Amino acid sequence: MKNKNFIEISEVGPRDGLQSIKTIMPLKAKKKWISAAADAGVPEIEVGSFVPAQLLPQLADTAELVAHALTIPNLTVAVLVPNLKGAENAIKAGAHKITIPLSASETHSLKNVNRTHAQMIEEVKNIVALIKTMPSDKKPKFEGGISTAFGCTLEGKVSKSKIIEIAYALMDAGCNEVGLSDTTGYATPNHIIKLVKAVKSEIGEQNLTGLHLHNTRGLGLANVVAALDHGITTFDASLGGIGGCPFAPGASGNIVTEDLVFMLNSMGYETGIDIEKLLHVREIVKEALPEETLYGFLPEAGMPKGEYYGE
Amino acid sequence: MKNKNFIEISEVGPRDGLQSIKTIMPLKAKKKWISAAADAGVPEIEVGSFVPAQLLPQLADTAELVAHALTIPNLTVAVLVPNLKGAENAIKAGAHKITIPLSASETHSLKNVNRTHAQMIEEVKNIVALIKTMPSDKKPKFEGGISTAFGCTLEGKVSKSKIIEIAYALMDAGCNEVGLSDTTGYATPNHIIKLVKAVKSEIGEQNLTGLHLHNTRGLGLANVVAALDHGITTFDASLGGIGGCPFAPGASGNIVTEDLVFMLNSMGYETGIDIEKLLHVREIVKEALPEETLYGFLPEAGMPKGEYYGE
Repeated sequence: MKNKNFIEISEVGPRDGLQSIKTIMPLKAKKKWISAAADAGVPEIEVGSFVPAQLLPQLADTAELVAHALTIPNLTVAVLVPNLKGAENAIKAGAHKITIPLSASETHSLKNVNRTHAQMIEEVKNIVALIKTMPSDKKPKFEGGISTAFGCTLEGKVSKSKIIEIAYALMDAGCNEVGLSDTTGYATPNHIIKLVKAVKSEIGEQNLTGLHLHNTRGLGLANVVAALDHGITTFDASLGGIGGCPFAPGASGNIVTEDLVFMLNSMGYETGIDIEKLLHVREIVKEALPEETLYGFLPEAGMPKGEYYGE
Repeated sequence: MKNKNFIEISEVGPRDGLQSIKTIMPLKAKKKWISAAADAGVPEIEVGSFVPAQLLPQLADTAELVAHALTIPNLTVAVLVPNLKGAENAIKAGAHKITIPLSASETHSLKNVNRTHAQMIEEVKNIVALIKTMPSDKKPKFEGGISTAFGCTLEGKVSKSKIIEIAYALMDAGCNEVGLSDTTGYATPNHIIKLVKAVKSEIGEQNLTGLHLHNTRGLGLANVVAALDHGITTFDASLGGIGGCPFAPGASGNIVTEDLVFMLNSMGYETGIDIEKLLHVREIVKEALPEETLYGFLPEAGMPKGEYYGE
């Protein structure tokens, strides 16, 4: 299925979306969402985060969601973990992919997970050591997600050299790859190009393939267009654009899965996702979260007449 | 002021924006808007359209707006005209630039201005003949704007060959240049690239430099990024994204001037526009149109801390 034209969309709504709204979506509705998204062809879903339930009660059922998602064929089941304890739970649950976020802004890191960079890298090393003890067919993929990579609402500028330093530290500690997250919605097309090129040239082309973008200043899809030209093949997105970072004031939702799929399809990329089915998933989420705003342009405007994308 | 890095933004809010809302903005408020936009550095403003007042009462004061705008130094004063009669009025008023829209979809053309393509080209020829009689220092620039160029909500697909045929007809009739308008919000990055390349290679690189984009499906700025790489140097945009086409059902507003300026500035392009001043213009429009929704991401999110765009 995957060819060189394939762009992988990772649906992060069940994690990044649900963690930033107050309503707790019932487990049954989450399972329905995940099943419907996978049925629409979404290849990877970040189903939750292994954080203490008292911190994020919205995600307290992550283990049950991993178990459910593992029953769906051909779906990559991803989770976020803030530390070794979370990774232990993720591994116990059987997640295929584990991401640990490390905020390039140390101020943000302290606020978000109460840890310095050095402490986070120690945690990464401990997780790598744990994964090493596992049989090779059970080892999850382990990604270091560099958050606030394009700037921080608290610190402002985050230097390119700081990102490169962290990317090296994550790879040296044993991560399989790194990703860059625009947690604060500061990224712009040229910044994307500069940073992606710089990091790839340092740690290797194949070790940075994914971006996590927000649409805070309306540039989310413009940033995707820029990234596509520079070897990025995986994008996080959130159905209906729900989500954001509760610890970064002013930073709103992820790029909208529906709009991203529409754009990628129109550009001749393969996503494996059926857009009509995806719009149906939106109905499921809307029904389960009647008081939440769902974003997205395509769902409002509908497909062009004749699904016409130009000659 | 204009160097090769300069991208010209044409503010079309006073025309495309105001024609599609019911409220009639008072002449005084329009003048204030135009003056403030020019003061913020907007180099060109489409101040109105010379159409019969009974059709678009919102734009009935276009002649007075041209007169006002002509008092502002270094501002290109643009207007839309549907026919020879409109062009006569535009010339009498002294507009610097006149655009006549010609819809590539004949169905849309008939609905919009009740004329076939052949009739429109006749009208273009008559306008060119009129301009020829003028002293050379008074001649306005005359552009043929090909609307529904990326698809039509009525006809669906609009073929590339049809666009090229119309582009030739407009240039042969004596237009100074053509522009492409995504009236219906159907354009996608690849479609932009293909059509811009095709039209430029047919009628000449310098005869297509401007696009009029809508953000109906959220791809407006992504389309700009694609176009920038292919020799487009002028973009229409509307303050607060107000506007659209009242005759193309489902087609909503223009790309948002504020977001476009933010993106272009972040990409190292010169626009001559001071974004803080532009955000102040938004306040003026909001005050004059208290019941209208103003769109835009940057105005909601604010500038990144330290106006940081990456190293």
